[in-house]
Formats: sequence, structure tokens, C-alpha cells
Amino acid sequence: MMDIPLTLTALIERAEKYFSKKEVISRTHGGLHRLNYGKIGRRTRALASALEKLGVKKGDRVGTFAWNHHRHLEAYFAIPCMGAVLHTINIRLSVEHLIYIINHAENKILLIDPDLLPIIEKIREQIPTVQAFIVMADENASIESSLEPLYSYEKLVGDGDESYEFTSDIEENDPAGMCFTSATTGKPKGVVYSHRGIVLHSMALSMADTAGISESDIAMPVVPMFHVNAWGLPFVATWLGTTQVLPGPMVTPKLLAELIETHKITIAAGVPTIWIGLLHELENGEYDTSSLRYVLCGGAAAPKSVIHAFESKFGIPFIHAYGMTETTPLATLSRLKSYQRDLPEEEKLAIKAKQGIVAPGLEIKVINENGEVKPDGKEMGELLIRGPWIANEYYKDERTEDAFQDGWLHTGDVVTIDEEGFIHIIDRTKDLIKSGGEWISSVELENALMAHEAVFEAAVVSVPHPKWQERPVACVVLKEGKSLTKEEIIAFLKPQFVSWWLPDDVIFLKEIPKTSVGKFLKRQLQEQLKEHLTTQ
Amino acid sequence: MMDIPLTLTALIERAEKYFSKKEVISRTHGGLHRLNYGKIGRRTRALASALEKLGVKKGDRVGTFAWNHHRHLEAYFAIPCMGAVLHTINIRLSVEHLIYIINHAENKILLIDPDLLPIIEKIREQIPTVQAFIVMADENASIESSLEPLYSYEKLVGDGDESYEFTSDIEENDPAGMCFTSATTGKPKGVVYSHRGIVLHSMALSMADTAGISESDIAMPVVPMFHVNAWGLPFVATWLGTTQVLPGPMVTPKLLAELIETHKITIAAGVPTIWIGLLHELENGEYDTSSLRYVLCGGAAAPKSVIHAFESKFGIPFIHAYGMTETTPLATLSRLKSYQRDLPEEEKLAIKAKQGIVAPGLEIKVINENGEVKPDGKEMGELLIRGPWIANEYYKDERTEDAFQDGWLHTGDVVTIDEEGFIHIIDRTKDLIKSGGEWISSVELENALMAHEAVFEAAVVSVPHPKWQERPVACVVLKEGKSLTKEEIIAFLKPQFVSWWLPDDVIFLKEIPKTSVGKFLKRQLQEQLKEHLTTQ
Repeated sequence: MMDIPLTLTALIERAEKYFSKKEVISRTHGGLHRLNYGKIGRRTRALASALEKLGVKKGDRVGTFAWNHHRHLEAYFAIPCMGAVLHTINIRLSVEHLIYIINHAENKILLIDPDLLPIIEKIREQIPTVQAFIVMADENASIESSLEPLYSYEKLVGDGDESYEFTSDIEENDPAGMCFTSATTGKPKGVVYSHRGIVLHSMALSMADTAGISESDIAMPVVPMFHVNAWGLPFVATWLGTTQVLPGPMVTPKLLAELIETHKITIAAGVPTIWIGLLHELENGEYDTSSLRYVLCGGAAAPKSVIHAFESKFGIPFIHAYGMTETTPLATLSRLKSYQRDLPEEEKLAIKAKQGIVAPGLEIKVINENGEVKPDGKEMGELLIRGPWIANEYYKDERTEDAFQDGWLHTGDVVTIDEEGFIHIIDRTKDLIKSGGEWISSVELENALMAHEAVFEAAVVSVPHPKWQERPVACVVLKEGKSLTKEEIIAFLKPQFVSWWLPDDVIFLKEIPKTSVGKFLKRQLQEQLKEHLTTQ
Repeated sequence: MMDIPLTLTALIERAEKYFSKKEVISRTHGGLHRLNYGKIGRRTRALASALEKLGVKKGDRVGTFAWNHHRHLEAYFAIPCMGAVLHTINIRLSVEHLIYIINHAENKILLIDPDLLPIIEKIREQIPTVQAFIVMADENASIESSLEPLYSYEKLVGDGDESYEFTSDIEENDPAGMCFTSATTGKPKGVVYSHRGIVLHSMALSMADTAGISESDIAMPVVPMFHVNAWGLPFVATWLGTTQVLPGPMVTPKLLAELIETHKITIAAGVPTIWIGLLHELENGEYDTSSLRYVLCGGAAAPKSVIHAFESKFGIPFIHAYGMTETTPLATLSRLKSYQRDLPEEEKLAIKAKQGIVAPGLEIKVINENGEVKPDGKEMGELLIRGPWIANEYYKDERTEDAFQDGWLHTGDVVTIDEEGFIHIIDRTKDLIKSGGEWISSVELENALMAHEAVFEAAVVSVPHPKWQERPVACVVLKEGKSLTKEEIIAFLKPQFVSWWLPDDVIFLKEIPKTSVGKFLKRQLQEQLKEHLTTQ
């Protein structure tokens, strides 16, 4: 067979050649933009030519600091296809972490959204590797900033070479992108994506039994483009000529519902908190969501009650998936097997609430101190993954040796695996509560709590206890206008769990603190509550 | 990213782990067999262990000489996953060509269907590299043969090691399989498939916009397993746990129609002559074909009239594809783009009659003496292809340099390409008729002829002519009970073509001679007719 490398260049070129009429609909501060792939291709080439003029060379890391929009999409291809490395920077990181990752990645240039300039202005002096800034503002926007040298994205593209030829000097294992993931303790850890890994991942996303993405879809990544490449959707969607709707800054549930209705979205992807918010919006408004083939949910476990509400109340199929920054990210995905489709609804829901079976191309195993666990859906162990789109190290980071051992990624997630091969995330290793020597799953308690019709969201955290070492405490946010007492909540949980799983206390909050990508920030709650059970 | 090779081992192991209950339904001389993937996996391992005992080593070529059935499927995985090379031998080759390819591939072992033993017996003395024969008969069949040493497949599998571990000593570019393709002149040419090529091709076949094969499909490859790996269907179907129906020896249109109805086939794949035959059967019988999601047609251009009949008369979507032995084989595939779905039926049919756009992962260009042709659907040129599942040579064959130039496969097919990127096969370079310095397409004339309601099949060949160098002569097979004169046929064609395209003569035949894989054997007609226009 021919020795043809798998590179991102082939993806954008296919869109240019065969889908030049298909559109990307992009929301920025300035409003909605519609660009077809013919134009996206020309602008991408012009951007690449401009970056080259600014001195970007093969292997250089170029950072983006931006929302989901068409300019970010152009950077997704311009940077890797000229041989450089796309470093998508999480806009919600702390200043301290921002400085760390920009320095650690030695970013040469940063592309920044106009509303995010002030964040970078504050740390300018601490990021000496950055030689130039490009502001991704609309053409007519007036920008004031202390950053320099500061270039206008639209000016660079306007002056650039629309017929710039992407480099052919790319091996498939060359780095194409990188993304940092937050660590339990310490600085974020960097993951580098190769061209090969992203292309194989794109193929996997289009396979019928995974996300089955097609040219005829209208796909909206709600998951941020600064987070694991928006789960790879922009890459595969561009390759196939899929219509993309990029929802831009400050996405609210109301905006999401409107975009779904207006643009007849067929596929939307995001974390559970997004879908919990949308559910609330759909319950209170009148929206036509019938175009949706499914919503794809990952990043954290979705409560069964949320899956049930989407499917039975609104007729929206809900696909539960699992992945990590280290896994590009698709690792497992929950679709019923053909012979499971005739099961009773309750059993089907239980299967959908699992994280599913491993994507074609990857391998998993689940181990505990006795070796591989029994595939009985009960025995717990840590999930290990390997495959061609799984990272093999953290970028210049000695924590590599903890997570990557014997050729497997040790995910730190505790799961069960059933006889059909479906994994079910029980908890993060670190979030499991060890009470009197026995494990309690915070995730299972949270899911039960969120199934209560008055509960908006809930997090259960492990709190030090003088007698039992650790005990669960529930933090609950009620829906607007609802009330509930601690006793009512415990009474609601009681029939579902053995007694020693029941939380020692219930605390009512206005909101659960979240990480920069929308996951519950349990560490913060834990910190706040660390003496809660000792001082009571 | 991890350095994990793409190998066939991962495909069969996924079927064993996650789809052990799903079935392969296999028809042999002895009747129907049903085996689930759990059993197929164990038998595949046992077969590999037996081959190892018989002395098969890494890189050895092991030949199969068999119909489409479960034992052939087991060989598809056992041979490559133990590091050897699966050489699928075309059972319809001439004795001379059989001897040539078995020797050229230096086959060490042959696996043979019981009804095909006599063919190999006759050439035993001419194939000295073969050290052992394995007869793929049912368990209770009594076999007599002069071949020796002769082993029973079922005995080997029964005595083999069901938990045999496939070798981990496979690089992704190692050879997994090989297949010979007939050449215009001279001996067949060998193509070697790598593990990487087959895995990428399998991913491509499952992508939503190509064949979109899923676990929930019930797939029947009518295309022989001795012909380009049955277009790769057995590989991808096993990987995904798709139910496979392998139709066995001597497939008739009636049998096909019955299998479709009985097993609720959702995908069937074969060459145009198969579909022309099935069409005739459906027109004359009562069958329920409503389970079919589509039929996949490749290997030669399907007449527009056949596509139309399938879709409008029987409601069976017809997907037209194009490939070659050298392309693993999927190269292009014709599906309407989303914005083409609202076109008038006649325009949609015209698009479906084209061979479609290039599969994601491959590149094409169309060139003539002036460089790349205009994408106007009119200018003709030769189709060139490249990509990771395209061959880069013929196996130990000096004809390599004709077909593989500058990193591209020169297909020898003359095509047009339209502004949407759809290619349309006009003819083989060698089948184009050059009349007075102008080109006439034999394929276009054939398609027009086969659209006549009284015509069963038709081939148009180039015949030497004293004045015009070459002129077209039509060979026509009428449907049973129909009659038609030469004059009526010419009158039927007249409004559709310029006058100098019209055939000089029409010859009525009982059947068009076909190649071993069901394509029209025009060389034979050409040979018979070579003095037809000079001696008239």
C-alpha cells in the first residue's frame, strides 16, 4: 500500500474541493456570520500565510484563546497544516495556570478573542515567549489594547495569500495540537495530539455505531473549542462537509434552544451541566427540537433522570459517551446493541446511563488489586485504555509515569464492566468516599439526588470524619420556586441505598462551583467542608 | 499518542469480546450453519494454531480456494492474525493462470472447498511450493481426493487450540492479504494488502457517508470472498459485530431473493450482473425485500435503467460505487449530497448513475494530455488515485511501472468529473472505441441498450474497420420471450446519440461471456468479432 501519511491537510482540502457550498454558521460578539467551506478554505490558507510571515515555523506552538466561532475553526486547520502546533488554551483557567501553560508550551503567537484581551494584558509581562498577538475581532470592531505587537486577524487574512500551499513536510506522527488538562493537585498537564491520532479519531466519530456524523448533519459543538478540540467535532465535520453551527461566546440555555430551533441542529455535543440547563429551558419554554438526531453527552456522568427526561419528555435521543483530554477524547459510547432494543424501557435506560462500549480502534481493561475484574457489572476497578489516539505522555512532565504504565493509560476512573462490555463510571478514584474501610460512590448518590423533581443539581463530597475516616455530605441546588428539607432528601434516598451510604448532612447552595469546562468542582466544596463533620 | 499498530487482530478480538452472541449465517454444500462470533473466534484461533503446527510462519502465503462461507471467514482472520498472508484465489481462473498465481505467490498451504478439489488435483504437479492441502468440508462429509497430504478443516479446528494467542509481532505495514487481478494481456497481477490498509478501509466502510455499516446491519456479500476480500465487508462486519449472511456456492438470483427475504438482509453487495439477475427474479416472483437499506454495486458501471428499476419499482436504494483490486477496493461512492435531495427525480437518477465522490482518506485527479481536466462533467481524462489503502506496486511484477507513476495509481479508467466532484466512468482506456480519430464510449452505448425493456444485457465492443480504424458492434441478449430486430435496436438508439456513435452491427447472443468476477468479458467477444467488419 502507498505510504501516505494521515494528516489534517487532507481534511480541509476535501471540504474545499467537494463541499465548497456547504456552510459554517458562526456567532461572534458582532452577530451571526455565514461562510461556506470554499471561503473558510481560502481564509485558512491566508491565515497560514500570515503566520508564516510572522515567523511561525514547523513545530512552533501557536495558542488560541477564544470561543467557538469560524475564526477559531480556521486556526484549527491553518496552524497544523502549516506544520505548527495548535495550542487551545482554556479561557477559564486561573491566571497562575494560564501563565504556567503558555510558558510551558512556549507559545510564540497568541490568537485572542476581543473580550478576552484584558486577561492576557494582565499577564503580558509573565509570558515572554509570546512574540505577537492577533485579535480575532470582527472587521469593523475598534480594539484598544496594551498588547503589542497586536495584529488584526481580519487584516492579516485580508492581506494573506488565499492560495497558500500547505506544507507537505508533515509526518503523520508529527504534533498537530495540544491541550492542557487540570490535575487534582499541581499544575495542568499537557497532552499533545498527532495528525494521525486526530485523523483516526475523526474516522471513528463518523462510524455508524459511534457518533455516525454525516455530511447531511447540522452539528453544534457546545463543548468549547478550547477543550479537547471540542471533542474533535470541528475536524470531522469539516472533513465531511457537515454544516457547523458554532455558538460563540456566553452560551445560555435559552440561546442553545433558539439555535437548535432556528438552524435545525441535528447533533449537539456538551457536558451534563449544559443538558441539565437546556432541560430546564425546554420545560419552561416552547421550542421545536425535532431536528435533533441526538445530543452527545460526555465529560462527566449524566444522571439517569436527565437521560430519561430528554428521551421521554422531548423525544431527543441522548447518547452518553466517555473520554478524557488524554483520549482525544472519544473512548467509549453507549448505544444499545440491536438485540437490546426490545428490552423493557427501564432496562434500556439503565444501559444508556452507562458509558458504553469501547470505540472501534481502542482497547480497554478494568483492573483492581486482583487483576482484571469480572465482567458482571458489579466488581469495581480502574479503567485502563490504549489505542492510536490515546496519549502516551504528558508534555515535558514527570507526572507521565503515574498515568502511563506498561503501555496503558491509567484513567483514574473507577468503573464496572458488564457482560455486554458496557462500562459504568462509578467515580474518580479520588472522589470515592472510603467510609469505615468500604467504598461509597459519590456519583451514584448525585444521580439519585438529581432524579428528584425539585433538585436542579447536586454534588456529593467526601468529608473527613473522626470515626469513619470519610463520610458523604450532599450539596444540593433546588430548582427555582421549589423547597425541600434535609430530612425530605434523606427520606427520598433511603429506599435506594444501604443506610451507611446516606449522606451525613445536606447543604443547600445557590450553585455548585464548576471547573472551567463545566464539571463539578468538588475540590472547592471539599475544601470548604473539610471541618464540617469534625466541628459539628 | 501511543504507537499502536492498526492490525486485523483488533478486529476479530472486538467481535469476540463484545459481540459474542451475534451470528454469522453461512451456506455450504451441506446446508445452513449458524455460528456466533464467540464460536467463530474460538474456531479462528484453533485454525491458526493448526496452521502453525503445519509449519506456517510469519510472511508465508496461505491460499484459499473457496466460496463465501464461515470457514472462509475464519481463514480471513486466522491467516493474517498469525502473521501469514491470506491469498484469496479466484476459483474461476483458467488452469494456466491458477498455476501461475499459486507459484508466483509461492503458496505453502491451500484451503480448498470440497467441490473445487478436482481443479487443484489436475494441477497438483505444477504447484510444487504447496506443502499441504486442507479441505473445507462439513464435518460429516466424505472426501475422496488424490491430493496429499490432505487435512480435514474440521478435524484441524477440532484438534486445535481455541485459546491460541495471535502473534503480537505484526507491524501495521506488514502484508495481511493478497489478490490477483486479471490483466488486459498477460498473466494476472498480484496486489498485496497491508494490515493498516485493511483497517483504514474498514473504518471508511463504516463512515456514515460511505457504506455506513453498523452492528445492527445484516450484511450479505454476494461479491465473492475470492475477489478483493469481498470488498472488505467480512472485515468490517466482523469488527462491528454485524450479522453476516454468507451465501455459499452457486448463487442464483432465486437463492439471493430468498436469502434477502428469509434473513431480512439490510445490505447486499455485488456487481451489476448480480443486480440485473436479481431484478429479473423480483419482476417475476413475489419477495419481501423491505429489509434492504440499500444494495451496493461496484466492479463495473451499473446501467441507469437498473438503478431506476431498483429504486422506483422495488423501493430498494441503490448505491453505486467504484473501486479496483488495487484500491482494496472502495475508491468512490455515489450518495446524493444533502442539497441534491430536492432535485427532480431525473437529475437525481443521473447523479446516482455516476460513480460518486472519492472516499474520505483518498485523493483523486483526472488528467489528459493537457493536465487536469475541467470539472464540468464533460471533459474526459484518466482517473488517478492515491491514499493509504491504494496499492503502490504489483507483487514482484515489472508491470508496476506502467500503473504506478509519481505516487499515483493510474487506473486506466476514462472518466469525467463534475463540479460537485462526482466522477463518471466513461470507459476503460482500452475499451474506448477510436473511430476516425474520435472517441466513442462503449459503456454509454451499453447503458442505453440495457435501458430497452426487451434487452437483458448488452456489450458493445470495438471492432477493427478498414476505413475508420475501429467501429462499435453491439452484442445483445434479449429477455426471455422477447424479440427485437437489428433495425429496431438502431432506431431505439438513434435519438440518443450522434449518428457516428451508432453501432455498425447488432449481434444477438444467448449470453454475454463474463470474467471470473462477473464483468463482461469483452476481449473474448472482440477476438470472435475481429474480422467481422472487414469480411462482411
